[in-house]
Amino acid sequence: MQPLPTPDGIIAAAQAVREVVQPMPLLENPVLNRRLGGRLLLKTEIMHTSGAFKIRGAYTWLKRNLLSAPRPVIACSSGNHGLAVAQLAQRFGLDATIVTPADAPKVKKQGIEDAGATLIVYDRARENRERIAQQRAQATGGVVIHPFDDVDVIEGQGTVGDEIMNEARAAGYTIDQIAVPCGGGGLTAGIATMFIGHSTQVIPVEVPDFDGMARSLKAGILTAAPGGRSSICDGVLPLTPSALTLVSCQAADVQHTVLIDEVAVRAAVRTIFTYFHLAVEPSGAMGLAAVLAGKIDPCNKTTVVVCTGGNVDPALFGSIINGN
Amino acid sequence: MQPLPTPDGIIAAAQAVREVVQPMPLLENPVLNRRLGGRLLLKTEIMHTSGAFKIRGAYTWLKRNLLSAPRPVIACSSGNHGLAVAQLAQRFGLDATIVTPADAPKVKKQGIEDAGATLIVYDRARENRERIAQQRAQATGGVVIHPFDDVDVIEGQGTVGDEIMNEARAAGYTIDQIAVPCGGGGLTAGIATMFIGHSTQVIPVEVPDFDGMARSLKAGILTAAPGGRSSICDGVLPLTPSALTLVSCQAADVQHTVLIDEVAVRAAVRTIFTYFHLAVEPSGAMGLAAVLAGKIDPCNKTTVVVCTGGNVDPALFGSIINGN
Repeated sequence: MQPLPTPDGIIAAAQAVREVVQPMPLLENPVLNRRLGGRLLLKTEIMHTSGAFKIRGAYTWLKRNLLSAPRPVIACSSGNHGLAVAQLAQRFGLDATIVTPADAPKVKKQGIEDAGATLIVYDRARENRERIAQQRAQATGGVVIHPFDDVDVIEGQGTVGDEIMNEARAAGYTIDQIAVPCGGGGLTAGIATMFIGHSTQVIPVEVPDFDGMARSLKAGILTAAPGGRSSICDGVLPLTPSALTLVSCQAADVQHTVLIDEVAVRAAVRTIFTYFHLAVEPSGAMGLAAVLAGKIDPCNKTTVVVCTGGNVDPALFGSIINGN
Repeated sequence: MQPLPTPDGIIAAAQAVREVVQPMPLLENPVLNRRLGGRLLLKTEIMHTSGAFKIRGAYTWLKRNLLSAPRPVIACSSGNHGLAVAQLAQRFGLDATIVTPADAPKVKKQGIEDAGATLIVYDRARENRERIAQQRAQATGGVVIHPFDDVDVIEGQGTVGDEIMNEARAAGYTIDQIAVPCGGGGLTAGIATMFIGHSTQVIPVEVPDFDGMARSLKAGILTAAPGGRSSICDGVLPLTPSALTLVSCQAADVQHTVLIDEVAVRAAVRTIFTYFHLAVEPSGAMGLAAVLAGKIDPCNKTTVVVCTGGNVDPALFGSIINGN
């Protein structure tokens, strides 16, 4: 297995990602805090170029592995990782291919094509995306950038945790818990690594039937979730973490996991629209959903929820904020 | 007339408003920049507690005039100034009354009531809101906080300009133009005052028939716009600036003004949703609307658009982002 991500690796990545992301200060709303009985802070990753945190990991990988000797890049992604790779490839003049499930949001597929990448659409139920990506890599002489099973990618995503920690430290408060939407576990592993040795609890939040991290942490070994019909949380649908993200989470003492349903996610999207006037995609609202659904207790605590992305189709977003 | 606002007064206010607002960094999106052929920066005022910049002026006024000797407060407002006053009154334990037109957005009226203020609804066509406010002031022994005709309020709003200037200076670039949604002219006057003696052009943006600032600047004297049917830009419907805001804009050499229609505003709301994943209310998108409609030329320039607020009813927002 690759070496595990480290806080030093994340701090090194944090310097570099500033070239492509502009860190947003943690947001809070006193009216919402009063309603929740605790301090809620939003780490918003939606205003980046690619509309999601994924650009951190993708850029860190490119910077460390490829930019000195350019080659075509290939990524498998339900959207946000692919969009980040496509936009970065455009920026640095690389040929890019993104392998995306047919049921990915239109806005993500459109963004990938707008960035000039080749989009290969596959059927999530019948086809193996890794195989498609490997074939493409062989055909183009390119290299596949995995969305989470890579130490450089994880350290890139971990820069979210570095920024959270720095801001809390500068303002002189302690964070009790950080709720992180969890798909393959790259972001969770990165943030948890950053908080090793701190009292802050990093809590992966998953949707039922796509809860590979919860199952794997409980079993102590990689365990696949059953999957099932799709979810509005299209960003977190991998069925298992990777060995690397799982072991990283274990090493960082991630224990408590949470499952939330779509009703809670919709309520969270609405709440973020109402109190912060932000358009967060469903996957990005999962942290707050866990709080609103009573799965994470905010009372008398300081809780950070990571709003991972904002790439949501307007029809779905309009329907959610209008309570449908 | 009251003394004019000054850059020093604004800088003094900027220190204080940090107690109630968290400045957001200027946002930009390279993909949108490429499309526009210039550098576009968003100054976003939507994530504040009250969802709009108005809390800056209201807090500055309260801090300088009232907090040492509390009295009831009264405000006339289509929503955002009222919401700011109501929330601040709740925070500081003041009795508050907000006089609001019947056709104000539900979300603004609801927010005012949620903050515990008394809401008096009036008919924009038949009733005089200033008279209602004065009667209420007499009945309660309270004081009316004007939404724009006040040097303390203008200096509070001008802190938006101070933040823009500081960020540009720290990053080492010059701003060519700042597009500001303009109703009574408080924000425009404040920002323009801050940029006196700089090459930056501050451009008020208005909607047709509610273009009191454009008419007054052209005539050189307070000149009322005709008004007419309402607009989705509910935050900028005063028919004239005040003597103070007009003279402040004249003193700051504001000359160029722009009118934009609702089609452009809707396109701008959609563009901000698409590229930045923010929910801006129609009035708050007017600056970008002027750019998208070709009324402000972004080519090879650095343009700041001030996104003044995010208090928009979900039904309207859903309809706009879906192109209806």
